[in-house]
Amino acid sequence: MTQSSSRTYRLGEIVTQLGGELIGDPGAEIRRIATLESAGPGDLSFLSHSRYRPNLQHTRASAVILAREERDATTLPRILCDDPYVYYARAAQLLHAEDRPVPGVHPRAVVEADAEVAASATVGPGCYIGPRARLGERVIIDAGCTIGAEAQIAEDSRLHPSVTVYPRCLVGKRAVIHSGVVIGADGFGMAPEAGRWIKIPQTGRAVIGDDVEIGANTTIDRGALDDTVIEDGVKLDNQIQIGHNVRVGAHTVMAGCVAVAGSTRIGRHCTIGGAARIIGHVTIADHVTIAAATVVLKPIPRAGVYAGVLPSAPGREWAKTVAHLRGLDGLVKRIRELEKKLSKSGKRKR
Amino acid sequence: MTQSSSRTYRLGEIVTQLGGELIGDPGAEIRRIATLESAGPGDLSFLSHSRYRPNLQHTRASAVILAREERDATTLPRILCDDPYVYYARAAQLLHAEDRPVPGVHPRAVVEADAEVAASATVGPGCYIGPRARLGERVIIDAGCTIGAEAQIAEDSRLHPSVTVYPRCLVGKRAVIHSGVVIGADGFGMAPEAGRWIKIPQTGRAVIGDDVEIGANTTIDRGALDDTVIEDGVKLDNQIQIGHNVRVGAHTVMAGCVAVAGSTRIGRHCTIGGAARIIGHVTIADHVTIAAATVVLKPIPRAGVYAGVLPSAPGREWAKTVAHLRGLDGLVKRIRELEKKLSKSGKRKR
Amino acid sequence: MTQSSSRTYRLGEIVTQLGGELIGDPGAEIRRIATLESAGPGDLSFLSHSRYRPNLQHTRASAVILAREERDATTLPRILCDDPYVYYARAAQLLHAEDRPVPGVHPRAVVEADAEVAASATVGPGCYIGPRARLGERVIIDAGCTIGAEAQIAEDSRLHPSVTVYPRCLVGKRAVIHSGVVIGADGFGMAPEAGRWIKIPQTGRAVIGDDVEIGANTTIDRGALDDTVIEDGVKLDNQIQIGHNVRVGAHTVMAGCVAVAGSTRIGRHCTIGGAARIIGHVTIADHVTIAAATVVLKPIPRAGVYAGVLPSAPGREWAKTVAHLRGLDGLVKRIRELEKKLSKSGKRKR
Repeated sequence: MTQSSSRTYRLGEIVTQLGGELIGDPGAEIRRIATLESAGPGDLSFLSHSRYRPNLQHTRASAVILAREERDATTLPRILCDDPYVYYARAAQLLHAEDRPVPGVHPRAVVEADAEVAASATVGPGCYIGPRARLGERVIIDAGCTIGAEAQIAEDSRLHPSVTVYPRCLVGKRAVIHSGVVIGADGFGMAPEAGRWIKIPQTGRAVIGDDVEIGANTTIDRGALDDTVIEDGVKLDNQIQIGHNVRVGAHTVMAGCVAVAGSTRIGRHCTIGGAARIIGHVTIADHVTIAAATVVLKPIPRAGVYAGVLPSAPGREWAKTVAHLRGLDGLVKRIRELEKKLSKSGKRKR
Repeated sequence: MTQSSSRTYRLGEIVTQLGGELIGDPGAEIRRIATLESAGPGDLSFLSHSRYRPNLQHTRASAVILAREERDATTLPRILCDDPYVYYARAAQLLHAEDRPVPGVHPRAVVEADAEVAASATVGPGCYIGPRARLGERVIIDAGCTIGAEAQIAEDSRLHPSVTVYPRCLVGKRAVIHSGVVIGADGFGMAPEAGRWIKIPQTGRAVIGDDVEIGANTTIDRGALDDTVIEDGVKLDNQIQIGHNVRVGAHTVMAGCVAVAGSTRIGRHCTIGGAARIIGHVTIADHVTIAAATVVLKPIPRAGVYAGVLPSAPGREWAKTVAHLRGLDGLVKRIRELEKKLSKSGKRKR
Repeated sequence: MTQSSSRTYRLGEIVTQLGGELIGDPGAEIRRIATLESAGPGDLSFLSHSRYRPNLQHTRASAVILAREERDATTLPRILCDDPYVYYARAAQLLHAEDRPVPGVHPRAVVEADAEVAASATVGPGCYIGPRARLGERVIIDAGCTIGAEAQIAEDSRLHPSVTVYPRCLVGKRAVIHSGVVIGADGFGMAPEAGRWIKIPQTGRAVIGDDVEIGANTTIDRGALDDTVIEDGVKLDNQIQIGHNVRVGAHTVMAGCVAVAGSTRIGRHCTIGGAARIIGHVTIADHVTIAAATVVLKPIPRAGVYAGVLPSAPGREWAKTVAHLRGLDGLVKRIRELEKKLSKSGKRKR
């Protein structure tokens, strides 16, 4: 029952709750948020970037969120504010508040006798809550989740269907964890002996801070001895892999399919582009931006933007680039040869 | 109960149902399909490419599917047809028809009172079917799946165990969705404000067309405002990530581990190689082929083959290539220097 | 209930069980293993690499595992052995033995009547064990797993929560399979016909050997006709994708997010770095090491180290490299031009 819109708001109510300057009828009814292109009557839209300004002319929205300097960009009812994108986010939270399921443990859930489930928490059908696990106030555990022994989920967190939290792991407050996420599986630790691999028990935990969102099918391994730590406010997209003993600094975001190998420390307020891969045992500074699909093989000690991807090209053109790249060694030799000849001919002439 | 072979067929029956020219005894019994190498008595094999022709000499198959021009390539009973690979696909569908589970809701499934489940549909143990969800005729939902509120699965679709469909999402007819797939989790939308990230509710849906197959652990996010759309006939392999508001055109195929960032539009009849990554907000034309592991950072407005991967090399050789690449700046300067000198010496001589 | 430490050991007991030379009080009590940095009283630590030797001075560990040649590196109680890392692995296995759940089928599990579950096996709540499936002695199936019809899990294997094993697949002895793993989903097989894709039924199996570990959300497809095979002792990290008909040789390890396309054969004792991607239909020799994030597009017939990744760089520097790379064609022409001129001027001079 997520995402269904709850009730209509009047424009005046929205401004009262979220601030901003209203130009137009405060009594106008708003049902939902929509893009300029797809909006119709009853919809509130927004202009987050001047490149979308042409869409403003044709929108059928009932009202628009604008930056203060766009005051005269339309004659529609409008809300002027400092940051229309942030305002849109907050208005969408208001208009599309999630329905909360009724608190209580579903009769088809299994909760071990010594687990603690807050009275205001919801546990869906098919869930298993292990011994001594603790679910805080207003926690929602959707259908089919498993919370291991002694694991804890703090207040106001929501786990969507089929999330697994391994024993002893911790999830902070207000977390949003999507389906298929696995928190606290064993890190990849093995000692080689005579051509075989001996498993190293992974005895640390995965510890997730407050206000963290984790996308579908992302995996965060438990630590080998010490903990794997995701700090407050971190946002992880889908299918991200976080190896054991990694620490991700507060308010860092990672787009989908990022892979972070074991024992790496990523700073605070970093932005990691989709499908970037970061090798193990390195430290990345605060405020680092890594471009999508970049491979990081060394520490990054200074804030800044880092990249490492070759853009694709039509097949034949690319084949030529690859051939040239392979021929670089020969090329360097030819240049050296030319330099030698020219230097000789120069000397001869002198 | 998938994949178990159902019954034997006589060669004549197969040709009657699937067409082709039979040379040999129509009464020969066929149990299953097998490769030329592993086939034995009772097996039907096929020659899909001339490079496998040597295997034809030694095969123990009871009969072989051949292209018409290979008529004399063997003396075994044989079916001649236009496209042996397609014929093999159809014959395998005939011989290895999936067992259908008995229709009905398993007593260990939970179906909300206002959900609609067709009488011919099957809901396995441990499933949860949310309020107002609808399952069409002959739909099979295997064990441990969750179908969110108001989601719909159209007729003849099968969800393998542990699939999650979020609220309000739609799956078309004849879909095959493998285990661990997550359809309609929140897209990755956040507005930055003072170093923190504010969640943007994702109120669009994920809408999957007819005849779509989705591989294990693939994730398809719901749209932010408008929908994420997978058109008819699309085939997605395992561990693919489709970001919010992406549109994948009809009959496009993607091999495993492809990542498509948000708001990108991929054309119809495209072939996306394994582990390719496509940046957000770009448009890819119809009939585009993208080589495996290629990173697409720009729109592709024309059909064709695109690539962008450097082939691996022995470690030392590769280190040299990297060094040369890093030295390109210096190399360019040395060439400019040479050109200047030569031009001077040329002028001097003139 | 995994990972909770079972009981304390005395140093003398540890040496009796695992070997090594003890210097110090054999009666000292050890509770757990810890790193040199985080260890306190009751902890056993280890020095696995000389670069950590400085940490030895300040550790508060009760005892340390050292290489024989480090005998005098500390005055703490110590165990001298040939390979401290292997010793640590074994000591951790001793000290952090997993609690075993009580054998038996949970009343909230569904086991088909003709499935065989050993009396010493455990089946958790929410599991579904299909017809004719077989679970060996001491097998543990945690909550929410699905074992398909006729699939077999051999003795002493453990499946963590929410694992799916498709029909007819086999898992060997002593396997450790983490949450979200999907074994035996359909391989990606389709025949193109007139712009559409016809599904090829995947009738082979996925066959997993003994002593295999499989990380969270990894997917191993069943074979198209013959089987996909993971040989004994293979260790796979999280989010790995193994295509149909792949064979992975014994004792090979793969770090997280590796993708192996269909019909590829990987040798024994290989080490595949994280996020490496290997194209289909190639053969990789035994004892091959592939660096992280490398793309393998061709067979590798000889043991050795292979790489193929460009290291990232600050954004502006990288943009220059890309521009140079794109300009290589022009560069080659300029060099050819220079060579021609020099050769002419050389001839003229002669």
